[in-house]
Amino acid sequence: VRFCARLSASRPFEIAIIGVIIANGIVLGLETYPDLGSARLVLRVLEWCFRAVFVLEITVRLLAYGRRPQDFFRHGWNVFDFLVIMAIFLPGLRGDTGLLRFLRVMRMLRLVRFSPGLRTIVTALWRSLPGVGGFLALGMVTLYVYGMAGWLIFGEAYPENYGDIGRSLLTLFVLLSLETLPDLIEEGVAFSPWTLLYYVSFVIITVNVLLNILIAVIVNSMEE
Amino acid sequence: VRFCARLSASRPFEIAIIGVIIANGIVLGLETYPDLGSARLVLRVLEWCFRAVFVLEITVRLLAYGRRPQDFFRHGWNVFDFLVIMAIFLPGLRGDTGLLRFLRVMRMLRLVRFSPGLRTIVTALWRSLPGVGGFLALGMVTLYVYGMAGWLIFGEAYPENYGDIGRSLLTLFVLLSLETLPDLIEEGVAFSPWTLLYYVSFVIITVNVLLNILIAVIVNSMEE
Amino acid sequence: VRFCARLSASRPFEIAIIGVIIANGIVLGLETYPDLGSARLVLRVLEWCFRAVFVLEITVRLLAYGRRPQDFFRHGWNVFDFLVIMAIFLPGLRGDTGLLRFLRVMRMLRLVRFSPGLRTIVTALWRSLPGVGGFLALGMVTLYVYGMAGWLIFGEAYPENYGDIGRSLLTLFVLLSLETLPDLIEEGVAFSPWTLLYYVSFVIITVNVLLNILIAVIVNSMEE
Amino acid sequence: VRFCARLSASRPFEIAIIGVIIANGIVLGLETYPDLGSARLVLRVLEWCFRAVFVLEITVRLLAYGRRPQDFFRHGWNVFDFLVIMAIFLPGLRGDTGLLRFLRVMRMLRLVRFSPGLRTIVTALWRSLPGVGGFLALGMVTLYVYGMAGWLIFGEAYPENYGDIGRSLLTLFVLLSLETLPDLIEEGVAFSPWTLLYYVSFVIITVNVLLNILIAVIVNSMEE
Ligand code: NA
Ligand code: NA
Repeated sequence: VRFCARLSASRPFEIAIIGVIIANGIVLGLETYPDLGSARLVLRVLEWCFRAVFVLEITVRLLAYGRRPQDFFRHGWNVFDFLVIMAIFLPGLRGDTGLLRFLRVMRMLRLVRFSPGLRTIVTALWRSLPGVGGFLALGMVTLYVYGMAGWLIFGEAYPENYGDIGRSLLTLFVLLSLETLPDLIEEGVAFSPWTLLYYVSFVIITVNVLLNILIAVIVNSMEE
Repeated sequence: VRFCARLSASRPFEIAIIGVIIANGIVLGLETYPDLGSARLVLRVLEWCFRAVFVLEITVRLLAYGRRPQDFFRHGWNVFDFLVIMAIFLPGLRGDTGLLRFLRVMRMLRLVRFSPGLRTIVTALWRSLPGVGGFLALGMVTLYVYGMAGWLIFGEAYPENYGDIGRSLLTLFVLLSLETLPDLIEEGVAFSPWTLLYYVSFVIITVNVLLNILIAVIVNSMEE
Repeated sequence: VRFCARLSASRPFEIAIIGVIIANGIVLGLETYPDLGSARLVLRVLEWCFRAVFVLEITVRLLAYGRRPQDFFRHGWNVFDFLVIMAIFLPGLRGDTGLLRFLRVMRMLRLVRFSPGLRTIVTALWRSLPGVGGFLALGMVTLYVYGMAGWLIFGEAYPENYGDIGRSLLTLFVLLSLETLPDLIEEGVAFSPWTLLYYVSFVIITVNVLLNILIAVIVNSMEE
Repeated sequence: VRFCARLSASRPFEIAIIGVIIANGIVLGLETYPDLGSARLVLRVLEWCFRAVFVLEITVRLLAYGRRPQDFFRHGWNVFDFLVIMAIFLPGLRGDTGLLRFLRVMRMLRLVRFSPGLRTIVTALWRSLPGVGGFLALGMVTLYVYGMAGWLIFGEAYPENYGDIGRSLLTLFVLLSLETLPDLIEEGVAFSPWTLLYYVSFVIITVNVLLNILIAVIVNSMEE
């Protein structure tokens, strides 16, 4: 038990697992190419090695908790690791199903857990959310009101873009990238020049809100 | 009167109204889907409930002012609330007209009024306008001068884009999103390579002005 | 003389001239519409009024310098005003020529001179240039080196985009807006997948340089 | 030796070389135009002059090290200069080959070395990389995981965009410019409306990561 505890907390153990996770990612990537020939066998063998290593890793870390294995499951990341690695052994997952591949892709997310740098960044990103929350809510209200207004104005003329609130919201979300601005404005002006007010005000307001989200994030991260 | 004053200032009252406003928004969204069948009846009943709740809300808040109901109308938001909620009872608004739907969409804006967070943000956005005003004026002068120059240069060759000052301004406003830059430059170079000076200087100057608007907003919000 | 000096420095005089400049801009804009009918006569009369006002303005400001009118021409803006306003009386400029219209559009730039706010901003923008100069030079070297490399790689395959250094630079300048990225990458990959290195490195380097120009501008304007 | 040392460290020497490097760049640019006629001879002569000047420059700077020419090669830039200038004399490089032109383009990069301003900026850009490294790694993990997920979801339906991990990564890299967002979302919604989750989350996460790279760069450069 003590050996497992020391091992699971040691830096070389972490680095080795990071290496295997990255190798796992590369093998996953190689498998996406259709014409592999005999190399596919090598990849399959490697996948079995990865499974063995990951099961071993989980076992070591589980044993490190000694007589209280339930403490292991108190940390969110441990539960994630256990589910992602052990789910392979579920009876229905034999063969080359989509869910199995999905699980193998999920393994790569464990990279964040093992790299202290990535963990810090993800935590920081997560913590900056509340400071941005108010602006996000305002942005969503703006989007929804403009979505309803868009449906009222264009609903019948352009059902493709504004046929119901879902399509309206999608049209306006994509408009946030400014990509569809020229087409939508041309379409709108053909309907009525007054619709320029709709698009110009939408762009100015949402760019303003997005800008303030940016500023809130900058100010937040500078205070830390 | 005292009861109404206490009620209208209480947090649960606010939260309840926020909930009804959000429910009102969801119902409005659902109504945009054409194939609802019998569910449309439910939505209609809900709309009647919302109306009742909102009229009750306005009555409570109006009664809270006791013998001086005119003070109620001194606050801009109160006037907005009163107009948006009471306009439904105008004789011409029976049925399912566009104006009625518009009024119901406007109700959602009352969310800003009831959420202290959103109110703070909207106030901050509003207050940051004067600091930005000078740059906006400069941007508008730049846009107008380039609009006139664009009409002088391209007015006859490309009437679609530069046929009059309105079209010129629209072309240049859309160009701010950089979407139409490749097409306009190609068109311009086909006319004369010297028009590159026109577009390159326009992009550099306006990007510079937009950048300084961004900086002015950042500096403003950091001082607060 | 003293009266002219006091008048030309007074606030009402400035505001009046600003008003006339803006009216001049609006008249110029209205003139771009082809179907004006009898309104065109009104605009023509207004233009004559503007000319009279501007000539009067220049005269007043020139007289304010008393016996030393040459001092008037020591300030850059004064020379600009004099040229733009007086050039109308050149013999070749009768009728409705393009140069005449250009001069009338240039008059609008005098708005910057009369508005203290705009003058401050333009001066600040101008002063921030040196701090940005080094990055601009680096950006231009990068653009030129990539332009030459683009001509070496794609010159024969895609003469439209990379036929000579001028076209290469234009292609890469437009690419800065990221608009043509998908098409250029598709074209490049069709030629050789290795060209991805060319485009990906170009985008990363120039975005990085543009970003540092942005930061230099922010830091500059915060020090003030 | 002492003369060479003093000369190679003097400001006029540096400025002269900068001038020749810029002239070299302009000549390279002019050579890209196909119809030059007799001017091509002039450019060819100029190129021989540049070669002479650069060889002389390297000789002077090499001689400045006196009896220890090996010290010259201790600095990275010196090695770069030596290779770029002397490689012309390799026997295989006679005539007008692509490699020769590449070497002549590379000469322009020596501008960074001779201009203290550019050198400072390039060093600063280089030093800011580590602070950004963590975010870049996170961005790459995100891109790879979404690339694998994209292949799992769209691999069979849209082999053009998601046929293997290479195409997936390319599709998602180009999506970072937001240019292809409207087309990809339309394609995705035609496949299944649930794919909206894929694109919306990808855009929000990567924009967030890119934003934090921006902030990290700003904070880094402000600390200096
Ligand atoms: Na774009
Ligand atoms: Na586009």
